[in-house]
Amino acid sequence: MTEARILESSIINPGRIIDNFELEDKLNLKHGIIERLTGIKQRYYIGDTESLQSIASDACIEVINNSGINPSDIDMMIFYTEVPPTLRKKSRLIKRYYEVSSHIQATLIQESIDIRCECINLAGSCVVFISALQIATSLIKCGFKKNILIVGASNNSTFLNTIDKNVYMTFGDGAAATIISTSDYLGFMDFFRMTDGEGYNAGYFEDYSTLIIDRKQVSEFAPVAFKKAINGVLGKSKISIHDIDLFIPHQAGYTIIKKGVELSGIPESKVYYCLEDYGNTGAPAVQIALSNAIKENRIKRGDLVALVAFGIGWNYGASLFRY
Amino acid sequence: MTEARILESSIINPGRIIDNFELEDKLNLKHGIIERLTGIKQRYYIGDTESLQSIASDACIEVINNSGINPSDIDMMIFYTEVPPTLRKKSRLIKRYYEVSSHIQATLIQESIDIRCECINLAGSCVVFISALQIATSLIKCGFKKNILIVGASNNSTFLNTIDKNVYMTFGDGAAATIISTSDYLGFMDFFRMTDGEGYNAGYFEDYSTLIIDRKQVSEFAPVAFKKAINGVLGKSKISIHDIDLFIPHQAGYTIIKKGVELSGIPESKVYYCLEDYGNTGAPAVQIALSNAIKENRIKRGDLVALVAFGIGWNYGASLFRY
Repeated sequence: MTEARILESSIINPGRIIDNFELEDKLNLKHGIIERLTGIKQRYYIGDTESLQSIASDACIEVINNSGINPSDIDMMIFYTEVPPTLRKKSRLIKRYYEVSSHIQATLIQESIDIRCECINLAGSCVVFISALQIATSLIKCGFKKNILIVGASNNSTFLNTIDKNVYMTFGDGAAATIISTSDYLGFMDFFRMTDGEGYNAGYFEDYSTLIIDRKQVSEFAPVAFKKAINGVLGKSKISIHDIDLFIPHQAGYTIIKKGVELSGIPESKVYYCLEDYGNTGAPAVQIALSNAIKENRIKRGDLVALVAFGIGWNYGASLFRY
Repeated sequence: MTEARILESSIINPGRIIDNFELEDKLNLKHGIIERLTGIKQRYYIGDTESLQSIASDACIEVINNSGINPSDIDMMIFYTEVPPTLRKKSRLIKRYYEVSSHIQATLIQESIDIRCECINLAGSCVVFISALQIATSLIKCGFKKNILIVGASNNSTFLNTIDKNVYMTFGDGAAATIISTSDYLGFMDFFRMTDGEGYNAGYFEDYSTLIIDRKQVSEFAPVAFKKAINGVLGKSKISIHDIDLFIPHQAGYTIIKKGVELSGIPESKVYYCLEDYGNTGAPAVQIALSNAIKENRIKRGDLVALVAFGIGWNYGASLFRY
């Protein structure tokens, strides 16, 4: 059976950098409090000419250029987001529920990137990248596909409401794209994914307009889910925590990650954070963290890496791979 | 490598039957015109206590009961729809973008159906069932999963607007659920899936409220896509049209299907229709047709079947399997 590995993973940053100073003014908070509470120093928001689709398309262009792949060799695109789709019409984002992955493909083709393939959309919270990786790996292992482009994006900023300042200060926008390709070595080794449906109501977009999160429920659930996901994926293999070079968690928040890390018995030095520059970007956060870790040389070819994610649903999961 | 087959496929009908008489009155049309124009005799709409989630959950319960599977042997649920999610709060459907598959799982567990597994959501138009089948097949062939529950549902009726009478008279609601399981014979043989992104704007839910369809574009594109999908899947195998026992198309409309059938050179006697009882139920239409064809004994174990679907995006695809 063919194996699957990461060919390339890239990010783009949405156009507006929002520092804490600006946000504290907006939220009527004392300067310095956001960093003290969250550890976050800045986040990106989409700019006036950007949209969910545009940042996703930009991330695709970035990863295709960085990888040097011939776009016509890509035989599938998996787009995912956790936000309700919106579409830019000149100065305004309009609410439109539609085929975002088709729109991304059309945009790429317009940019002379000849990507003619199956395009699908996954909708889901912060674990959906793990599911997308498992789907891509299995399609490649079976020989159905050879090169799969996974692109995650979200414009949370469109859905933030000052009524909940804690949610507002935590979330940012972002996009990442990863190409999973056939491999002559064992890249993706194991996956673990579980849903405990009782958490379906702990986070959602009310009236498709406002991001609502039950932070108390989430902060209780998330560290436990972190541990379950790590145990789940390691239980399937003969690999122990000490064999793993880097753990890349969903960037939900420092407190949640540190609790999960402690519960799981992972050495802090092996945990990757990029929260301070991005905040929590939602569904693409773990893919953005992965791409950043590669960019910063925290992962080198041959390293053993664990991704771990947890989110509304409840959903949680982990993926073990050799880069 | 393990193979994958259909263990069981079932439908439930939403609570309200809407006959043409009632609809013609509502749309201010002469009695008899809807059947003359569309061939549709009735359609189902969700009732006052139903929702996207409830009809999907009911379809899951139906297929689990019909198959006799132990729910704890199901290791993944793939939910899909093409409509923006809504949630029932007593007498009212509220707009809420949320984890529908988690909600379905929570509902099943409440009904003492112990289904603890990964749950994901696919968002997409009328071809998404073909993608879901290909994903399920590959996950099973690789040994990642053993029994996958695919559930498709949509409550189009919530999004119909009398401004476009043609769309209004065509669409209905529905749900179907299918269990794909490991197999000792070659069940799913080949898939073909393609996206031509330029059609992303030919259909959508404006303001997440109103289903808008460019019928002219769709009726030009669909028969050609039908043929491309059939050629695509047959081109991968040594099987010809004459070897296939039944063709089950997406139930988009008689005119579209008949044109596609003619273009592809398929004998009419081998084409399955259930449009007259359901109208076009959107994304789950081809899964509903499959389930109906099994129920009516149009497919027997050992038969060679082709599913073919086409929709907004443009997306089109086909699946070839032995039942």
